[in-house]
Amino acid sequence: MSGNSFGKMLQVMTFGESHGKAVGVVVDGVPAGLPLDEGDVQRELDRRRPGKTDVETAREERDRVQILSGVFDGETLGTPIQMLIQNEDVDSEPYEEREGKPRPGHADLTYKLKYGHVDYRGGGRSSGRETVGRVAGGAIAKKLLESEDIDVIGHTLEAAGVSLNKKVDLEEIEKNVEENAMRCADSEVAERMREAVMEAREEGDSTGGIVEVLALNVPAGLGEPVFEKLDAEIARALMSIGAVKGVEIGLGFESAGLKGSEVNDEFELGEGGIIPETNNAGGILGGISTGAPIIARMAVKPTPSISKPQQTVDLDKMEETEIELSGRHDPNICPRIVPVAENMLALLLVDMMLRSGRINPDRFGGVK
Amino acid sequence: MSGNSFGKMLQVMTFGESHGKAVGVVVDGVPAGLPLDEGDVQRELDRRRPGKTDVETAREERDRVQILSGVFDGETLGTPIQMLIQNEDVDSEPYEEREGKPRPGHADLTYKLKYGHVDYRGGGRSSGRETVGRVAGGAIAKKLLESEDIDVIGHTLEAAGVSLNKKVDLEEIEKNVEENAMRCADSEVAERMREAVMEAREEGDSTGGIVEVLALNVPAGLGEPVFEKLDAEIARALMSIGAVKGVEIGLGFESAGLKGSEVNDEFELGEGGIIPETNNAGGILGGISTGAPIIARMAVKPTPSISKPQQTVDLDKMEETEIELSGRHDPNICPRIVPVAENMLALLLVDMMLRSGRINPDRFGGVK
Amino acid sequence: MSGNSFGKMLQVMTFGESHGKAVGVVVDGVPAGLPLDEGDVQRELDRRRPGKTDVETAREERDRVQILSGVFDGETLGTPIQMLIQNEDVDSEPYEEREGKPRPGHADLTYKLKYGHVDYRGGGRSSGRETVGRVAGGAIAKKLLESEDIDVIGHTLEAAGVSLNKKVDLEEIEKNVEENAMRCADSEVAERMREAVMEAREEGDSTGGIVEVLALNVPAGLGEPVFEKLDAEIARALMSIGAVKGVEIGLGFESAGLKGSEVNDEFELGEGGIIPETNNAGGILGGISTGAPIIARMAVKPTPSISKPQQTVDLDKMEETEIELSGRHDPNICPRIVPVAENMLALLLVDMMLRSGRINPDRFGGVK
Amino acid sequence: MSGNSFGKMLQVMTFGESHGKAVGVVVDGVPAGLPLDEGDVQRELDRRRPGKTDVETAREERDRVQILSGVFDGETLGTPIQMLIQNEDVDSEPYEEREGKPRPGHADLTYKLKYGHVDYRGGGRSSGRETVGRVAGGAIAKKLLESEDIDVIGHTLEAAGVSLNKKVDLEEIEKNVEENAMRCADSEVAERMREAVMEAREEGDSTGGIVEVLALNVPAGLGEPVFEKLDAEIARALMSIGAVKGVEIGLGFESAGLKGSEVNDEFELGEGGIIPETNNAGGILGGISTGAPIIARMAVKPTPSISKPQQTVDLDKMEETEIELSGRHDPNICPRIVPVAENMLALLLVDMMLRSGRINPDRFGGVK
Repeated sequence: MSGNSFGKMLQVMTFGESHGKAVGVVVDGVPAGLPLDEGDVQRELDRRRPGKTDVETAREERDRVQILSGVFDGETLGTPIQMLIQNEDVDSEPYEEREGKPRPGHADLTYKLKYGHVDYRGGGRSSGRETVGRVAGGAIAKKLLESEDIDVIGHTLEAAGVSLNKKVDLEEIEKNVEENAMRCADSEVAERMREAVMEAREEGDSTGGIVEVLALNVPAGLGEPVFEKLDAEIARALMSIGAVKGVEIGLGFESAGLKGSEVNDEFELGEGGIIPETNNAGGILGGISTGAPIIARMAVKPTPSISKPQQTVDLDKMEETEIELSGRHDPNICPRIVPVAENMLALLLVDMMLRSGRINPDRFGGVK
Repeated sequence: MSGNSFGKMLQVMTFGESHGKAVGVVVDGVPAGLPLDEGDVQRELDRRRPGKTDVETAREERDRVQILSGVFDGETLGTPIQMLIQNEDVDSEPYEEREGKPRPGHADLTYKLKYGHVDYRGGGRSSGRETVGRVAGGAIAKKLLESEDIDVIGHTLEAAGVSLNKKVDLEEIEKNVEENAMRCADSEVAERMREAVMEAREEGDSTGGIVEVLALNVPAGLGEPVFEKLDAEIARALMSIGAVKGVEIGLGFESAGLKGSEVNDEFELGEGGIIPETNNAGGILGGISTGAPIIARMAVKPTPSISKPQQTVDLDKMEETEIELSGRHDPNICPRIVPVAENMLALLLVDMMLRSGRINPDRFGGVK
Repeated sequence: MSGNSFGKMLQVMTFGESHGKAVGVVVDGVPAGLPLDEGDVQRELDRRRPGKTDVETAREERDRVQILSGVFDGETLGTPIQMLIQNEDVDSEPYEEREGKPRPGHADLTYKLKYGHVDYRGGGRSSGRETVGRVAGGAIAKKLLESEDIDVIGHTLEAAGVSLNKKVDLEEIEKNVEENAMRCADSEVAERMREAVMEAREEGDSTGGIVEVLALNVPAGLGEPVFEKLDAEIARALMSIGAVKGVEIGLGFESAGLKGSEVNDEFELGEGGIIPETNNAGGILGGISTGAPIIARMAVKPTPSISKPQQTVDLDKMEETEIELSGRHDPNICPRIVPVAENMLALLLVDMMLRSGRINPDRFGGVK
Repeated sequence: MSGNSFGKMLQVMTFGESHGKAVGVVVDGVPAGLPLDEGDVQRELDRRRPGKTDVETAREERDRVQILSGVFDGETLGTPIQMLIQNEDVDSEPYEEREGKPRPGHADLTYKLKYGHVDYRGGGRSSGRETVGRVAGGAIAKKLLESEDIDVIGHTLEAAGVSLNKKVDLEEIEKNVEENAMRCADSEVAERMREAVMEAREEGDSTGGIVEVLALNVPAGLGEPVFEKLDAEIARALMSIGAVKGVEIGLGFESAGLKGSEVNDEFELGEGGIIPETNNAGGILGGISTGAPIIARMAVKPTPSISKPQQTVDLDKMEETEIELSGRHDPNICPRIVPVAENMLALLLVDMMLRSGRINPDRFGGVK
């Protein structure tokens, strides 16, 4: 296995299995002089942490981050920042009994085919627990973006078939998204989402949805043609999150059925310069940011862990069998995808800012 | 600008502006000993070439490829393969008159913001002409995949609002896709697509659609968790194609509204081993190929060049103005996206085969 | 700061400041199924550990490694291997008093110029303590090489002006190198080296030397022309070790004064195929391994920390001043460079084996 | 084969075999707006071109560069710059007769072992002709450095056993180096070098030497600890040049025999800030540039092509045989290494300037 690092100028390498001793990340490329403490990271980890509401797995993890290098006297040194989070609530028992029986929709079979084994203690690196490292790293990226007045924010657009069928403005999202279990910008819709999620769960089933993530105040000029277009990099970053099966930018798939005159954003002169009237492009033209908000949406498949019986194959006996999953699982993963997607986007944006010379790679606040 | 190279073990670097002297590609990492001649590459370039049907731009390019290095006596040497295609039908006139007026939906404005200029001879690197290099490189990747019995094939699922509303099997796609202007698997649907495309064009407008690309017989085990998941890499590869605004794998966005029991592919014992009954996952679980066909779909936005008047800004006078585009443009780009998407997927798959040790990087047919 | 990772297919990212909480490494790209435990790593760390003899700094570190991920039931999972080593004997006092006065020969000034600060607790990432992560990572690489019957071994050729002026064979090196404080292949010469080192130390001065590292039984065919030649990669790997100011391969600088007929290794037919009679090339021709032993030598400058008074500049007052260093320093760093150089070479060789398809990246022992 | 690209932010990919149709390079990452024409590149190529003096091969190549993309109206577009140089004097005959008989000191055998073939038309990518692409790319890097007042200059320190045994200052080098066939800073020494070279040639033999390359006015702060130290990257860049068997920085191997008090550069206050009195470190401390001149030296082995009979193996008959080389070869390659080394260093420095944010990656002269 390789592929556990992300980024070119800001590079994170994450590690840790879901049922091993610890998970974490090393972040390389953070400029020196950025104010940072464990609280900054803890805040993001707490948003990702499960067990807070009934739409999340009951696995309880305090997820206390320790920063073991790269920060001194409340500031980054410019050296790699290593962050460690111990695994605490590691209950491998329900996993052991299903050893050798790949779970449909999970990575058990492909890991077996690729590595010759499955880490039967749990999903290993294919578990959602892997995202702890992403979020810890992203928390630092968010800190850097903050200092550039760039905001990254996500919310659940659809869950369990219930859609937020109206335009919401940013203020609503910011106000409401942390106020309900579904991280939906409308609390009433959130409640209907939650009910639909719990209903499916009663049936032993799971549900999916759509998560949107926005970046505001991103400077124009990020993104490198031809292969490192900003939208291409966003697609990769978001599609690398487990359970995500589709990514779209701006109007996305909707634009496929429209005409050029309906999709093109016409330019007008505004106070801040040339600004498109609309933002069907999702803030990206020709792979380069326009200055308008970046808008990306992800299709989140239903959590593959369901308690309904499913057909699988017993790999030892090589015969078909049934499997019923009794572990602790998220009935709907959308609200927990929200902070992960935000932090992936934050990591990417800082990387692109560094590649485009918009952030000084050596020293926060610039080199004299 | 950087970002003009793609791949890690098989690396292509493309070059050339739409109205410059030439376009092309260098391909590094092809094993020695692969039979290859210019005809192999020409075949793919001819599929991409415009001007063959009325749904394509009238720009006429013969696109004759010259292989200038890396091949000797009909075989690859293992050295970088440089392929050059002269630009011939370079008519910059219609472009000159609109200098300084960024076209809505195009990269003119973002290039200006990023590089301080727009190549007023034409789209430069943001033009679809840039894909010549991708296709030339992909033709070599296809040759390598062929030798591994892997097929990559694309087709137009939807164009100008007309959808192929039925399941088609591979044979139909292979038989029909090169037989009609829309590269649709059903010739009757293709005709309706074409009519809708031409109708919009009459109005001075353009249309988009959905393109699907498949890879068959891909071995299990490709894709590197966590950040280099096969689906993440596919999303990046396909989203890097101009006009693509969304990518989905398997059921994609449809899965967002379904339940776990509907989406999970149950495993059964087949002749070739453990095979999922269905392929909702699009051939990828946990970021790793399962052995089932890889299925990816792209949302293609309507071609931004339309002859209807659109509002823009005159950058010299800094005042709002109108623009009507009279150049030669594709009224619908879907059929021409098909070979580009195929070749991007081919490049990626060879890269992943090399990364996973499935193709010998030094020598075609292996090292004794 | 970036640049804390090494390797393409086998990638290590090291972290930790000399006077911070911990140092360590994440190793990504180790195939699944390699037998590994903490003892394998500890053995190499113990070889690097200071304080064992009088030619080394008195700083005492037990350097106990903890493997926090990537290994389960005594075997690698294929997932990233995170190794953590707590810093214990962290005495920042002698450092504090010299804050603001860059030490000649050290990185204090350049860090200040680049990052706007110096980590006054000690050398931070520029300290030799940084090599703990390299050695821990290299220990895993050595394990992989062992399974391919490849040996990497280093020894001190010259120290404090005392040279090993004779050809030694491998057996002698293997037998003697761990038996004396200088890691010299001849114990009598080692004693003379040690005396010269201690004599200089008495004067408050330090000494340098030459370290040689060999790799035996390396398969032919490693190294990628043109820029990733095996010798180019070796030069980078070894020159990245602090205090190394020169790298040469085979005859190296000696060949500059010789003639082609004296330097060219003529080919003869041997049992194992075509083998050069001599090995002036140091096992590499055209950037590719020949199958003969790889031979590389490093110039190690005298440890910059000396207790003699040296002129420097007080950065606060911006006036010239003197500095005398009283911390615990290695009077000669050659014997401690030996394991670091070996482990860097081991990391590189595994990476090149993976790039050349000689080791299966997914699974130790190969994919069926 | 991979490994034909160099650089991270400024990336070159070179291509072309010595006896193929053409050689060249694509340069990606040059900021937009840099004044550039073919003359700028031709100047450097002419310095590299053989056949000008009797110490060089008689192969005659005009090496006319064509810029096929990336430059318009005398300025870079920011897009990849493709440069093509046709091979003209391609005489494969002397090569054909020795097919199947690897030449000692050349890459024939290793290419055969790695790729299963040798390009019998000539050295292919292992030939010195490969450096045409490096020099063409480097010419652009030099243009960028010029605009930052950074000079890169090389000269021959030793050839055929004749040494420049005195300190020369920069002015002398600049004045004399292009005035004699050996590119030596002292014309009288150059003449003695040339005589020694020609004498060895008379005997059918070849000679080597030492080349030094300097970079002046490099800003402090370039180089990324830990693995991407500036000296490590320089070592890799220079060692990747064929025939180079050793690289040293500053005092290099000489420092191995000295004491700390002799090697450390003490700091003093000068006009431009803190400047070391001496420059034993060669302008680099802790892997980061100090602001003092960068000094690197290379050991150049004698050209492996000699006309004296040498033992080799006939690979077809698998029996030992003799080989006498009658092609056109450089009796001493040092003067031709000089421009290659300069241009490699220029490419690297621009890359490091971009990585450190000292050059704006998007736009020459900066983004407003």
